[in-house]
Order: sequence, then C-alpha cells, then structure tokens
Amino acid sequence: MAQERKGIVLMSGGLDSATVTGLALNDGYDLLALSFDYGQRHKIELEKAKKIADHYSLQHKIFKIDLTQVGGSSLTSDVGVEQGSLNRSENYIPNTYVPSRNIIFITIASSIAEVSGIQTIFIGANALDYSGYPDCRPEFFSAMRDTLNTGTKLGISKGFNLEVPLQYLKKSEIIKLGMSLGVPYELTHSCYLGGEKACGKCDSCLLRLKGFMEAGIKDPVEYEYLPEFYIKNWG
Amino acid sequence: MAQERKGIVLMSGGLDSATVTGLALNDGYDLLALSFDYGQRHKIELEKAKKIADHYSLQHKIFKIDLTQVGGSSLTSDVGVEQGSLNRSENYIPNTYVPSRNIIFITIASSIAEVSGIQTIFIGANALDYSGYPDCRPEFFSAMRDTLNTGTKLGISKGFNLEVPLQYLKKSEIIKLGMSLGVPYELTHSCYLGGEKACGKCDSCLLRLKGFMEAGIKDPVEYEYLPEFYIKNWG
Repeated sequence: MAQERKGIVLMSGGLDSATVTGLALNDGYDLLALSFDYGQRHKIELEKAKKIADHYSLQHKIFKIDLTQVGGSSLTSDVGVEQGSLNRSENYIPNTYVPSRNIIFITIASSIAEVSGIQTIFIGANALDYSGYPDCRPEFFSAMRDTLNTGTKLGISKGFNLEVPLQYLKKSEIIKLGMSLGVPYELTHSCYLGGEKACGKCDSCLLRLKGFMEAGIKDPVEYEYLPEFYIKNWG
Repeated sequence: MAQERKGIVLMSGGLDSATVTGLALNDGYDLLALSFDYGQRHKIELEKAKKIADHYSLQHKIFKIDLTQVGGSSLTSDVGVEQGSLNRSENYIPNTYVPSRNIIFITIASSIAEVSGIQTIFIGANALDYSGYPDCRPEFFSAMRDTLNTGTKLGISKGFNLEVPLQYLKKSEIIKLGMSLGVPYELTHSCYLGGEKACGKCDSCLLRLKGFMEAGIKDPVEYEYLPEFYIKNWG
C-alpha cells in the first residue's frame, strides 16, 4: 500500500466515521483524524473518537468551536432530544439538527488541510439513512466540493477531494463493509444521549440497531433498552 | 421604507462592510451585524465594528472562533505581514490570506441566520480590488450560494440569499457610493496592522488610499505614513 496520499477524516466517534477511517486506511491513506469540541452536551463522543484514533495510531486533532453561540438544536442546548422513530416522512428534519454543522466542519477541515498541504477530506455521511439532515445529501456535497475548489488557494491550484464513500450505502451495508475491514465498532458511540450505555430509543440508536439487525450481526456496544425488532433476533 | 426584510451583515470594521451596511439599510433591511473574534492579532477591528454598528443602532453579535488553531496566516500568527504592493500578478495570494476564512464566516452566519429565521446574508467582498483572496471571487460566491441552498433546512425550504452588492465595483466606486449614503468612513479600519493610526504601507492601506484618490475624496482616517501618489493630491 502506498502511504503518500494524505487525508483528513472527520471523526465523530460514531459508526460511520469509524468505517470511513477503516476504508481510507485500507486504501493507503495517511490520515489525520479531526474531531470537534463544539459544545455538544456529551463529551463521550470525543472520548470515543480518541479511542478510535488511538486504535489506528492516528494523529488526533480536536478543534474547538462553540456552536452554542448559535443555539437552536437539542444537541447543543437545553432543548430535549426527541424520541426516535424509523417511520418519519422524507421531509422531516429532527430537532437534533444543528444548522450548517457539516458545512462548518468541512470548511474548517479544508482550512486545516490547506495549511497542512492535504488535498483530501473524508466524511462518513450517508444519504439513505441520513435521518433528515440536509447537509448529508448528495446535492449538498456536490455544491460543497465546488465551494472548496473555487474558494480556497489549494482548491484553485491543485484541487480538493471531498470523499463521501458511504454516501449511497444503507446502514447494514456500511456495517458489513466495516466488519470486513475489522473496524472496532465496540469503540464507537452513536446514541444522542450521553450515557456509558446507549439508550436504544433515540433516532440514532434505532438506525444503528436496525442496521446491525439487517446485517445479521450483533452490535457489540451495550444498551439500556433494546427495541422489540432487535430482541427478536439477538435478545 | 419597508422594514420587514431581515438580513445579517458580516461586519469586519472595514470600509467595504460599512458600505454594504449603509446600502442594505437604505434598501430597507432590518440588519443584525455579525463580527468574528477569530484570533486576529489586532482587536481594533472589533472596536471599529462595534462603533459602526452603534452608529446605525444595530444589534451587534461577536462570534468567537479561534482560527489560530489552524495557523498559517500572518493575520492570526507570528508570521509578519508583508509589505504592500499595487502591482502584483493576478495569481499572487498574499500571506494575509487565512484559508477558508470567508467560507467559515459565511457558513456560521448561515447557521445564526437559520436559527433566527433570517434568509439574507450580506458580505462586502469585491472582486476587482480583491487583493488576491480566492474566497472573494464571483465563482466562489456562486458555489457558496448553492451550498447554502442545498445544505441547510432554511435553504431547502425557503432559500438563502447571499448578497455581494460590491462584487463588481472598484474601490473608488464603493467609496463614492458610500459617501452618497453617508457611511461613516471615519469609523472604519482597513490597515492590517493594529495601530490607532493606519500604517499607509500595507496592501490594504494602499488599496484604500488609491480608492479615495481615484474617487477625488480625502480619506477621513489618520495615517502614520502617506504614499507619494496620495500626497500629490491631498498632501
């Protein structure tokens, strides 16, 4: 494997970003893991991100940006996280949405990338199980790519790659892919709540459990509660 | 004048953003002035921004984001600001360039706008005297507009306007426009150095002085030094 190609991977501590990390490393990239201390209520995400970076012996940078200065989302303010559901309408956007969060994170990553001479940014977003966030959709990533390639020195001179390799995969397909790459899912955290055990009830837990169920694999993390559909298989 | 339309104006404390503010107010917008405490070495920009906001009785929000975490620019690190020149090649990008700075600022503005139900963002960038920054070019703003309209809830549902009204104006034309609107240029600060008096030598001072000279107007701010071309007219 050639180790010349450098990339930045946005690492949230979740299942998707861990999978992208495994995929990019397998593809020969030399990676810098970038996480954001953005005022999220639960720092467990950052602890898990660090564990995943350590697992892969990656340099891990935590960028601080206080998005509580913006407000408006249950992930950064006192608004309660809403109960999960797998049966929402296509246009529903949950209150865990932080306006422009991915745009802000990708943009800051591009700034760090440019200073470090890195041309590739990996993000673990996916469009199918995207849970209603506008900044996880393919048309957004296409526009974001154009923005980086017109609005930055590195973009204009050499070009930026914004890689979204999980974009068209279902959660179960992501999990199967990750298992084949040996991604340490036991170190990941997907729950919107901050407990040591995942809640098993929020949107994020439900999507994750459904993905593991459909992949025919038992989720290695512990849950406070398990939904009926999952218990049928792994209870 | 109708006061229903709301906008956010990015206010740096400089001549261009002051002019855009005057223009948008004259056009009937109800404005929130947004400045960034981004780790710039000189806080005089923020003091001037506050004075301009106060002059117009605008709500003024200062968002903190520490871009020294990125590094690489003379405006946020110990790299020296390079001597100004009005005769640079078209592709020259000076070391005062902070990678992705405008993208980051516009994106954060979009986040605040969305939470506040504001659909319009004003920025005082201009393409002609743009001093070599990639994120001041028209093709960048076009891509950025697409990014906001695909990657945000408000953009998808109602649409975002990213207004760059000075885009195709020369500095002298901006100054003439601002004077006709009564923009308080005596409160603005353009110099890259942080002194109470402008240096008169950096790129930004040279562009400003050339603009005033060509507009046939005397710059109301004080300078430590005045270049020959300006002294001929106003010495």
